[in-house]
Amino acid sequence: MPASQNIPPIVEPFVSDRALKMLDVVEKFVEEEAIPADPVYSSQIGIGEARWQGHPSIMDDLKRKARAAGIWNMFLPKNHFKEGPQFTNVEYGLMAEQLGKSITASESCNCAAPDTGNMEVIARYGTAAQKEKWLKPLMAGEIRSGFLMTEPDIASSDASNIQLRMQRQGDSYILNGSKWWSSGSGDDRCKIFIVMGKTDPNNPDKYKQQSMLLVPADTPGIKVHRMLSVYGYDDAPHGHGHITFTNVKVPVDSLLLGEGRGNEIMQGRLGPGRIHHAMRAIGAAERALEWLINRLNDKRKIPFGKPLSEHGVLLEWVAKARIEIDASRLIVLNAAIKIDQRDAKHALKEIAEAKVKVPQVALEVIDRAIQAHGAMGVCQDTPLAYMWAHLRTLRIADGPDEAHLSQLGRRENRQRKDEIQARIAKQQSKTAQLFQSLGLERQELGAAKFKAKL
Amino acid sequence: MPASQNIPPIVEPFVSDRALKMLDVVEKFVEEEAIPADPVYSSQIGIGEARWQGHPSIMDDLKRKARAAGIWNMFLPKNHFKEGPQFTNVEYGLMAEQLGKSITASESCNCAAPDTGNMEVIARYGTAAQKEKWLKPLMAGEIRSGFLMTEPDIASSDASNIQLRMQRQGDSYILNGSKWWSSGSGDDRCKIFIVMGKTDPNNPDKYKQQSMLLVPADTPGIKVHRMLSVYGYDDAPHGHGHITFTNVKVPVDSLLLGEGRGNEIMQGRLGPGRIHHAMRAIGAAERALEWLINRLNDKRKIPFGKPLSEHGVLLEWVAKARIEIDASRLIVLNAAIKIDQRDAKHALKEIAEAKVKVPQVALEVIDRAIQAHGAMGVCQDTPLAYMWAHLRTLRIADGPDEAHLSQLGRRENRQRKDEIQARIAKQQSKTAQLFQSLGLERQELGAAKFKAKL
Amino acid sequence: MPASQNIPPIVEPFVSDRALKMLDVVEKFVEEEAIPADPVYSSQIGIGEARWQGHPSIMDDLKRKARAAGIWNMFLPKNHFKEGPQFTNVEYGLMAEQLGKSITASESCNCAAPDTGNMEVIARYGTAAQKEKWLKPLMAGEIRSGFLMTEPDIASSDASNIQLRMQRQGDSYILNGSKWWSSGSGDDRCKIFIVMGKTDPNNPDKYKQQSMLLVPADTPGIKVHRMLSVYGYDDAPHGHGHITFTNVKVPVDSLLLGEGRGNEIMQGRLGPGRIHHAMRAIGAAERALEWLINRLNDKRKIPFGKPLSEHGVLLEWVAKARIEIDASRLIVLNAAIKIDQRDAKHALKEIAEAKVKVPQVALEVIDRAIQAHGAMGVCQDTPLAYMWAHLRTLRIADGPDEAHLSQLGRRENRQRKDEIQARIAKQQSKTAQLFQSLGLERQELGAAKFKAKL
Amino acid sequence: MPASQNIPPIVEPFVSDRALKMLDVVEKFVEEEAIPADPVYSSQIGIGEARWQGHPSIMDDLKRKARAAGIWNMFLPKNHFKEGPQFTNVEYGLMAEQLGKSITASESCNCAAPDTGNMEVIARYGTAAQKEKWLKPLMAGEIRSGFLMTEPDIASSDASNIQLRMQRQGDSYILNGSKWWSSGSGDDRCKIFIVMGKTDPNNPDKYKQQSMLLVPADTPGIKVHRMLSVYGYDDAPHGHGHITFTNVKVPVDSLLLGEGRGNEIMQGRLGPGRIHHAMRAIGAAERALEWLINRLNDKRKIPFGKPLSEHGVLLEWVAKARIEIDASRLIVLNAAIKIDQRDAKHALKEIAEAKVKVPQVALEVIDRAIQAHGAMGVCQDTPLAYMWAHLRTLRIADGPDEAHLSQLGRRENRQRKDEIQARIAKQQSKTAQLFQSLGLERQELGAAKFKAKL
Repeated sequence: MPASQNIPPIVEPFVSDRALKMLDVVEKFVEEEAIPADPVYSSQIGIGEARWQGHPSIMDDLKRKARAAGIWNMFLPKNHFKEGPQFTNVEYGLMAEQLGKSITASESCNCAAPDTGNMEVIARYGTAAQKEKWLKPLMAGEIRSGFLMTEPDIASSDASNIQLRMQRQGDSYILNGSKWWSSGSGDDRCKIFIVMGKTDPNNPDKYKQQSMLLVPADTPGIKVHRMLSVYGYDDAPHGHGHITFTNVKVPVDSLLLGEGRGNEIMQGRLGPGRIHHAMRAIGAAERALEWLINRLNDKRKIPFGKPLSEHGVLLEWVAKARIEIDASRLIVLNAAIKIDQRDAKHALKEIAEAKVKVPQVALEVIDRAIQAHGAMGVCQDTPLAYMWAHLRTLRIADGPDEAHLSQLGRRENRQRKDEIQARIAKQQSKTAQLFQSLGLERQELGAAKFKAKL
Repeated sequence: MPASQNIPPIVEPFVSDRALKMLDVVEKFVEEEAIPADPVYSSQIGIGEARWQGHPSIMDDLKRKARAAGIWNMFLPKNHFKEGPQFTNVEYGLMAEQLGKSITASESCNCAAPDTGNMEVIARYGTAAQKEKWLKPLMAGEIRSGFLMTEPDIASSDASNIQLRMQRQGDSYILNGSKWWSSGSGDDRCKIFIVMGKTDPNNPDKYKQQSMLLVPADTPGIKVHRMLSVYGYDDAPHGHGHITFTNVKVPVDSLLLGEGRGNEIMQGRLGPGRIHHAMRAIGAAERALEWLINRLNDKRKIPFGKPLSEHGVLLEWVAKARIEIDASRLIVLNAAIKIDQRDAKHALKEIAEAKVKVPQVALEVIDRAIQAHGAMGVCQDTPLAYMWAHLRTLRIADGPDEAHLSQLGRRENRQRKDEIQARIAKQQSKTAQLFQSLGLERQELGAAKFKAKL
Repeated sequence: MPASQNIPPIVEPFVSDRALKMLDVVEKFVEEEAIPADPVYSSQIGIGEARWQGHPSIMDDLKRKARAAGIWNMFLPKNHFKEGPQFTNVEYGLMAEQLGKSITASESCNCAAPDTGNMEVIARYGTAAQKEKWLKPLMAGEIRSGFLMTEPDIASSDASNIQLRMQRQGDSYILNGSKWWSSGSGDDRCKIFIVMGKTDPNNPDKYKQQSMLLVPADTPGIKVHRMLSVYGYDDAPHGHGHITFTNVKVPVDSLLLGEGRGNEIMQGRLGPGRIHHAMRAIGAAERALEWLINRLNDKRKIPFGKPLSEHGVLLEWVAKARIEIDASRLIVLNAAIKIDQRDAKHALKEIAEAKVKVPQVALEVIDRAIQAHGAMGVCQDTPLAYMWAHLRTLRIADGPDEAHLSQLGRRENRQRKDEIQARIAKQQSKTAQLFQSLGLERQELGAAKFKAKL
Repeated sequence: MPASQNIPPIVEPFVSDRALKMLDVVEKFVEEEAIPADPVYSSQIGIGEARWQGHPSIMDDLKRKARAAGIWNMFLPKNHFKEGPQFTNVEYGLMAEQLGKSITASESCNCAAPDTGNMEVIARYGTAAQKEKWLKPLMAGEIRSGFLMTEPDIASSDASNIQLRMQRQGDSYILNGSKWWSSGSGDDRCKIFIVMGKTDPNNPDKYKQQSMLLVPADTPGIKVHRMLSVYGYDDAPHGHGHITFTNVKVPVDSLLLGEGRGNEIMQGRLGPGRIHHAMRAIGAAERALEWLINRLNDKRKIPFGKPLSEHGVLLEWVAKARIEIDASRLIVLNAAIKIDQRDAKHALKEIAEAKVKVPQVALEVIDRAIQAHGAMGVCQDTPLAYMWAHLRTLRIADGPDEAHLSQLGRRENRQRKDEIQARIAKQQSKTAQLFQSLGLERQELGAAKFKAKL
């Protein structure tokens, strides 16, 4: 059954026929081109230091095929950007789910993070010159980019802690500080960094201290020291860099949107990005479920005299995976619809729900698929162990689960407490009136006995 | 914010303006009439044996008010029954959520189980005479009814185990056997039982052995022995009866639909009923969340020097409740839409997902609200403890979670295994071809060393 | 296999032969006398208001039998009280596990809360006159007692919030305030309350404001308004009372230990009491596991063609119950040993671990046993539903889980942080020295490439 | 506080003064030598293919230091092997906990798997010649060894599925088949494999088909193809090899114990090995908890205005870790004591409990420590990510959790069902007698009403 015929009934009204057709093209590409190419991609990366030189040639083949199939830059949301293929967040969300099943698919369609978010930022906030210089080659898939936000020495989940200094000096900004988890910075093709830092660290409004600059990756003073691993994976050639900035000088026209508006840009950037990540995670979970089912029906695995598919505990894993994946998908699509209806700022609750729930569900499903594979599950012979490690970072990236839960709980409490307290008080008073008007006393356990005593 | 403005964006296209208006009427009735009346209802039931005599007069007041407000019999689904108020399952689902917040609301609107399912059955399968005699007074809220399915001595989750015997004898059926958890049978107003039994116990098709009969509650030979408690609650005056049938004789025209079609009726009955139960459970969970928030802002509760609303663990409970309730609601509404699009048989997966997930989520939320209230939470001073006990039965009624998970897992495995195995095999073969055509070998850890050795 | 031969090997050195023999007597009494009597006890309580009059006569029979068997007052700990039967906390703990399997067993042996804690308090802190008047009849099982600590309007988990006022007036104290969850206050035999209140509310040391008084239950001004339910259970005739004190006057010689020492008494009282509660909860969990196994082998329950004992999910429940019950028991016994070695104050960590873990484990096991019984599990036909409701209060009584976790986490952090930070810093410095002395550089991913660039 | 003063009171009687002293020596070595050396060891392994050549020289330094400190071969259990340092399983268990905190410590003391289990096997079952040739250099730490059990094409959790063929041919056995997860086979120092295979595949007793042979690693026909990764880690130089055997010929005197006794050897080998693994896992969990506490007190991390140590959710993680680690330790030590008292066969239940519970607890604690570190937690900058990946395999090695739970549940059910069913039946009959002898009827809800009706 093609993906277009398998979407939840509740989402049907939000998906155009054009998007349904494209969805099937994406699915076919992922299943027939990208997934089979994944192990080739991994092999072409090589070993040792060679992993950081060049990039697997099969990626260029995949990009050509994707472009020929018309699946390119689908992520650019309809309501914000007229040059893209004009899909809504919910429509692209369904495609992103397919992309999430393969390690090569997203990049093949030029829909890989952090480029997607970076392109959106430049498209929305960039000047004509900035667009010409950076957006054009990014949209053509000729170069890649980095988004430099997280810093090693602070609690980055709270953006007001950012320390990288951007000092105005004549027509330039001078940057000093350090960043890590700069994903993509290991790749030779990565030519441009969007950097978050502080232009005005003493502004009393702590969310107006930050600005964003476009900084070419080869600017003098930028030093990429090392790459960070994710569990034992290095994610070469992409990589997650640890970088220092020492008197890095860029012209003032590198500024995005305006001084002090870094935080504003970041807020807008995160909404759709979280939808993409979440839908890809759901695709990964679906693929893990497929591997789980595949394993259950492996005719060589007959522990204790019956095939795995007759073991009740494993069938329960399949069922629970089915329920939780389906629930998660609806949570994300509902958030995407809310963004489509207006914007990310009005969908904070829905986005937070997706941000927290989806990675936890996906990790659980993948972990169970690993467990069902026994030792095979933790090694290179299935896509599962890498998928798990990769998705584990989603519970941390853009703020840990706990920060989002805390904000979600705090907001829910703040917004509703007055109304709820008033309502319960009013209901209790109405109850009291009812007792009185009916001439009744509230029935209490044992009251008769103790009344009699007095 | 009225309920009509608070529905998830993803469900908006499925709800008519007429239903939105009615939804607000229902919400207002629940919040302003039913909830305040709940403690009065409980008090009017009385103590000891008196609990099983008559019923609280406030229920009659509530029914009058509900009827006057035009909220009556909303459960009858649009596509199956033209005499009702013509709402879809998804529309009524949203109303049922409101009803689930109060112990009196459902009955007030003549939307209480098991009458709802019973009315649907008679409406769909009853003869004109059966409708005249039983459906009419049921729809008018003049009598109540029971659905007698579960038996004490067997595993009732598998309907083929049913033992109550229905023997044809001339123009009559003679019934012998016993039933329990016959909800509603404690109530003087309960006049009619729909009884499931076996007319043809030797039929080789074990799902054609069962039939359903309409049996007046006062038929000689029926003995209600006792009522069953639910965690100490007796649910008077409704009650859950334990009943024996000894040579109970009813005319053949008591038969519903046809001999051997009991199982077929039951399958159709369960789908919408599960939606109703699930949405009411969500309403209960929302109410528990309100009590949780109310408690967090109780100014008298300042343990260890700061108000409860500053305790991070409790805020996380609020957030997790928000996420899981919202996910559950979407799962149920998606199932309701699938039923609306066609019928319950085509929505087995979606209904099973709702059946399993919702009660677990609701119980967790309520349990945390109880915990946040301390000792107050387990006693009669909040609606929470009763709500918990009541909903705990949903993990058992109509089959325990484990039976549904097992079937869901088994079905998912059966339907998908061949396609999945073929796809993975094909992808692996494509990968092998790619390696070959590129003249590459798969990169394996340490392979160079061991190759060198040989 | 008798209980004495089934204790964990690790605890053997701590249990005397005398205690092992007594343990078997207790087990035999519980299995052969108390458990069979439980349903009779419940039936004798009666219905409606009669539940609060008198007490079941079978309790008197059980007490006679227990006393004749020499199992009486075993709870009084060896190291604090020479008149008792001289068992350690660990030895009595093993007996309490047996008592926890039945609703009548603890009282039968005069080992029921709150009398046990109250007797210990009077024994340790009472004057000769107080002992003569109250301890003697309590130890003889002639009267019962209450412990009045919790108040309705405050967060009682923090004792410094207590509000009941005890004002010195000449040779008397005048008490004003209210208490609830005064367990036992429903019973006609309850003659004496130990009351916690504030004699010195302005003392700058907020843990010296409290005192404890011995207050006869029939003192004028004491009004028991009503009983509180636990889920739907009233726990008659014992009951959990809601009580007000209005100008209740007691002589100064009612004081226990000294003014301002209420908190000190309470701390000492809680340690062993928590061990008792925890071990009884383990007994309840063991009994639930027995019912679960019994159910698995019910030959009439064959859902979907195979007996319950062949369903893998249910076998996993048995295994997980076995693991967690056994782990919990060791946690409690280890805490008991630590109390025995010195006192409760030195075992705060171990007691807190038991306090939090045991009820959660027991509730989980019982809930699964309920689930395996289907509808039968929630009603009066097994001991399970009542056991669950009863134990649910243990997650709240003497402070909710969250308060204990918070204190445990805070203490662990406070006591260890300096040592841990110093150690890790020292290890890192040693590592740096090793690199230096070996002339090595730390190997970092990709470092070679980026070094080459510079 | 040294480790010797920090053992649970309940275990004190089982630990000799000599062992306590040795425990402190081990702890000091781990904290001051091994942990600081861990990053050096990792760096010395090198990159790319070089990782499989030689081994880090710092390991030789550590071994010299350990030997000088007298901590060498402590694992050899007192009751089975007189040449070792004569510690019981419980005593060595406490030392193994310390070793588990470091990646280099176990090997430093010649206490690393799989050598420990292999040495035990040769010590117990080997001939004098076998001991001279293999045990001597193993005990001296001069060579290392492999244990070849798991096979790629079968469900190895059930040993009867083993397929590697060992065919008797004159004075030799000819081996054909394949093995994987042959841990240690990447190391140049690994000279000897203990191989499990089938000498008698048609034996009707399927647990007598297997034998074990001592096979030199350089025997012709053995091909190590590749190494398997664990979540991206290659565990070089040790490694987990995938190996084929093609007509590998060894003399008949390579046989251990006797033909058909492979399964018997394996059973004996697994018991103590599981204790060692479990205690090391507990050590890892303790170290993760230390890193968690260290992180909470990192003065640079102040998200949302307060230090991490003031965030209630994180304090709860510390407390829950404390409880579960302590419970796990007692479970393992109790199992060790049971082995010490007799042997592993009599401790199957206790060992299974430890096997299942400990890795789950350790993984949870480590995962939370990772989460508290944010992005730092998943990379090479803490020991946490590697520890997690390493321990994740314990839920699979020697059979997945599910196989152990299934066996544990099944055994508990089988051993107890008859006794439990008889007991409950007897209690119910005693209850019936009590009702009769007292002339009472069982009180049932609503019975009076329905009786009146009849």
